[in-house]
Amino acid sequence: MAGTIRVTVWNEYRHERENEKIAAVYPRGIHGAIAAGLGEDARFTVRTATLDEPEHGLTEDVLAETDVLTWWGHKAHGDVDDAIVERVQRRVHEGMGLLVLHSAHFSKIFKRLMGTTCDLKWREANERERIWVVAPGHPIAAGLGEYIELEHEEMYGEHFDIPEPEMLVFVSWFAGGEVFRSGACYTRGAGRIFYFRPGHETYPTYENLDVRRVIANAAEWAAPRQAVPRIFGNALPVEPIKGYVPPAKYHPAG
Amino acid sequence: MAGTIRVTVWNEYRHERENEKIAAVYPRGIHGAIAAGLGEDARFTVRTATLDEPEHGLTEDVLAETDVLTWWGHKAHGDVDDAIVERVQRRVHEGMGLLVLHSAHFSKIFKRLMGTTCDLKWREANERERIWVVAPGHPIAAGLGEYIELEHEEMYGEHFDIPEPEMLVFVSWFAGGEVFRSGACYTRGAGRIFYFRPGHETYPTYENLDVRRVIANAAEWAAPRQAVPRIFGNALPVEPIKGYVPPAKYHPAG
Amino acid sequence: MAGTIRVTVWNEYRHERENEKIAAVYPRGIHGAIAAGLGEDARFTVRTATLDEPEHGLTEDVLAETDVLTWWGHKAHGDVDDAIVERVQRRVHEGMGLLVLHSAHFSKIFKRLMGTTCDLKWREANERERIWVVAPGHPIAAGLGEYIELEHEEMYGEHFDIPEPEMLVFVSWFAGGEVFRSGACYTRGAGRIFYFRPGHETYPTYENLDVRRVIANAAEWAAPRQAVPRIFGNALPVEPIKGYVPPAKYHPAG
Amino acid sequence: MAGTIRVTVWNEYRHERENEKIAAVYPRGIHGAIAAGLGEDARFTVRTATLDEPEHGLTEDVLAETDVLTWWGHKAHGDVDDAIVERVQRRVHEGMGLLVLHSAHFSKIFKRLMGTTCDLKWREANERERIWVVAPGHPIAAGLGEYIELEHEEMYGEHFDIPEPEMLVFVSWFAGGEVFRSGACYTRGAGRIFYFRPGHETYPTYENLDVRRVIANAAEWAAPRQAVPRIFGNALPVEPIKGYVPPAKYHPAG
Repeated sequence: MAGTIRVTVWNEYRHERENEKIAAVYPRGIHGAIAAGLGEDARFTVRTATLDEPEHGLTEDVLAETDVLTWWGHKAHGDVDDAIVERVQRRVHEGMGLLVLHSAHFSKIFKRLMGTTCDLKWREANERERIWVVAPGHPIAAGLGEYIELEHEEMYGEHFDIPEPEMLVFVSWFAGGEVFRSGACYTRGAGRIFYFRPGHETYPTYENLDVRRVIANAAEWAAPRQAVPRIFGNALPVEPIKGYVPPAKYHPAG
Repeated sequence: MAGTIRVTVWNEYRHERENEKIAAVYPRGIHGAIAAGLGEDARFTVRTATLDEPEHGLTEDVLAETDVLTWWGHKAHGDVDDAIVERVQRRVHEGMGLLVLHSAHFSKIFKRLMGTTCDLKWREANERERIWVVAPGHPIAAGLGEYIELEHEEMYGEHFDIPEPEMLVFVSWFAGGEVFRSGACYTRGAGRIFYFRPGHETYPTYENLDVRRVIANAAEWAAPRQAVPRIFGNALPVEPIKGYVPPAKYHPAG
Repeated sequence: MAGTIRVTVWNEYRHERENEKIAAVYPRGIHGAIAAGLGEDARFTVRTATLDEPEHGLTEDVLAETDVLTWWGHKAHGDVDDAIVERVQRRVHEGMGLLVLHSAHFSKIFKRLMGTTCDLKWREANERERIWVVAPGHPIAAGLGEYIELEHEEMYGEHFDIPEPEMLVFVSWFAGGEVFRSGACYTRGAGRIFYFRPGHETYPTYENLDVRRVIANAAEWAAPRQAVPRIFGNALPVEPIKGYVPPAKYHPAG
Repeated sequence: MAGTIRVTVWNEYRHERENEKIAAVYPRGIHGAIAAGLGEDARFTVRTATLDEPEHGLTEDVLAETDVLTWWGHKAHGDVDDAIVERVQRRVHEGMGLLVLHSAHFSKIFKRLMGTTCDLKWREANERERIWVVAPGHPIAAGLGEYIELEHEEMYGEHFDIPEPEMLVFVSWFAGGEVFRSGACYTRGAGRIFYFRPGHETYPTYENLDVRRVIANAAEWAAPRQAVPRIFGNALPVEPIKGYVPPAKYHPAG
């Protein structure tokens, strides 16, 4: 039976088609690996979308039927159409969850939602990463041990130029001497956003069961509930105000 | 069928036994009204406990079987045994959720968990309260309208001496000129805490369907997931440190 | 003697030139009133800039010499050049403070920095506003009483579509039944941002001594200290990583 | 000329008197080293107080004249009188700043203010610590480089059982594989609290100029401004409420 949370797994899907080594790591594409992980979980109904599909696979209809969107991109952030970015942002404001994965820290959508450069340090040195849980009761960390260990990953280091997270769930340690805020929660409008660090295209990180667990937990966490209606614009008073005459052209806010 | 989230509804239960008018408002006690609201919801299995039971009804066994504890108290905060308060605090640290209701702002357990006086302004004037949602995508507000309106309630006003909430969900407006941070989320250890303002003993506030909805939403939000093990104390290094010899008396942390 | 904190007071400056009634309220322009308030304070050196100056008065040179920028706009947000908005955003990331005043909630710069719509409810009914302090120890509230009372102001009501503030300093009560998060602190990059609600063009709000005090306090709070250098890009390891050979084309991050 | 911020440097002062090696590291006591660092800074007037003085050196008079209290303790937390702890807590609520240093994470006062166990992992292995700045625009980090490097320190590792910080300023990396939230800001009542990790008694950490800079920055950050009066208790309405008759025994709140 299909799950009730509808996840759309979005991927740039260029590395895997252009580089044999990466294709060998992710024969189904990075989106294929992420979707496979989520697909095993009865909570979710999963579809995928990629950059080179029409409208990047993110039509109004697809987004309208998406509860949580996951986003992986790296070398083609600039190819994402601004109109689609606006569309995604609007859906986040309406309540759609968004999981921003690894190099998507530099995606247009994440930078727009954060208001910062989202820049960071990096190094490709096949080094060991330990992703420590710092919020052990948070639902995104449910079922994990004290940390996730990845034998080989790209390093991301501070300073990571993001707003102070509403809740910080993970902090990474790297063998080369850096730390990184690896799991960060935000709200924008009615939508919840989670940034999760690991996932360089040259490592099979999205096959890691703990990484998959985090993505699944985060998808559940970010899935919209019955959002409270957000009503903006000109408003009549509830309490009578002495002498107040409502404007003739009053329009209920929209 | 019983729900999977086990809620214990705790009540001081003195007003209702000592004052006829209050007994008329809450013939089953305040705990009875809260438990009735939760009991209609398939997510929950509900029990109650009150101050004058042995160990205030909060034995080690009861707490071990409690996922979320709701707390209402007012005039007998001082009669709550410090040892029971410590027990509840320890369970919150382990992951039990805690909903702190109305005048329980001054309960021992809330003050211990907050580290502040938790003092506030108040006035009994049967005045109108509008509890505005300020976090429309938050699960605790799911299914509400823009605000909850209570025709008659006790006023609570700022300054409310609490730590900055991790997330502020509600802000109240009172006819007499005050505002109040009415819904505030916290984490302490692995446990989640939600303070919710309304609920004076002289009004049937806990019969209000929106108030009941908030309490149910908050109980689900605060219910523990599989908390990550919290391991403290002396630790062996994971990475070998040059020249490091572990202490002979090494004990895995407890 | 001139103060050490260099404030640039920016104003759209259209209402005052096009509407006699508003000109009567602010004969020197809204910027003139704000600058006059700050100018009396020995901490500040104040200049002004307005929309219809070349580059809106915000040249690279002016911004380079600005520690804190205050922003008031209302009906001409769309006339602000995107290139100037980017310039201001970059300066905020570098550490410049930004005070966003009243209807500037809808300015391009605020929406870019927040990532939300920044929409809200409003009503022009000359109604009473009480701006309650909810963070009594915060430097932005220093020297105030429990609240600021404005006999006549435009109403702004929730939902205010902003990210959860890092610190909430003020909450407004309005006679007509609404509340509003009126003073909200953020950090973006190395820069601090404060949104402050009051200041409709038809009321002499910026002559109010408490409002002026808040703006001065906020300017001091937002003024940059010696920001830590933010170094991004490819990084060499500090700890030697077994087998790691740094890339030939290594560039220190910029 | 004495500075305007009055700092009291409190120290347990037992290790230094009982252990020759530690005495050699801190011949003036840990308080002496911290006070010496602050004393060179024109912003501060510094005094010291220690556990074995009457009332631990923290009489009502001393605390009344203290703007910021720094606290170092380790093996004698249990010897601190509960009445003195209450006194310090009350002063923090009134606005006094508190800097909690290293092993004082387990002090009674910190646990009371946090509401958590404040437990953590530790290891004495003379290992390298790098304290990364994650909030480069924060005043507590002013003037630092990207990180503070300490060649030899005790390790403290996550999970650190503290509430989510209002602002996280530092994250430590340790050679042995752990991370730690090393600089954390809180508010309790009108008082500001900063926890700062480094400072084991066997290393001359408090002679480190960057560590001293952080303590000085934090003391300035935590120093009280003119706190807004916090008025609690029964309150008269500001807006007339229809039919409201104030209680005969009305007392202005205290």
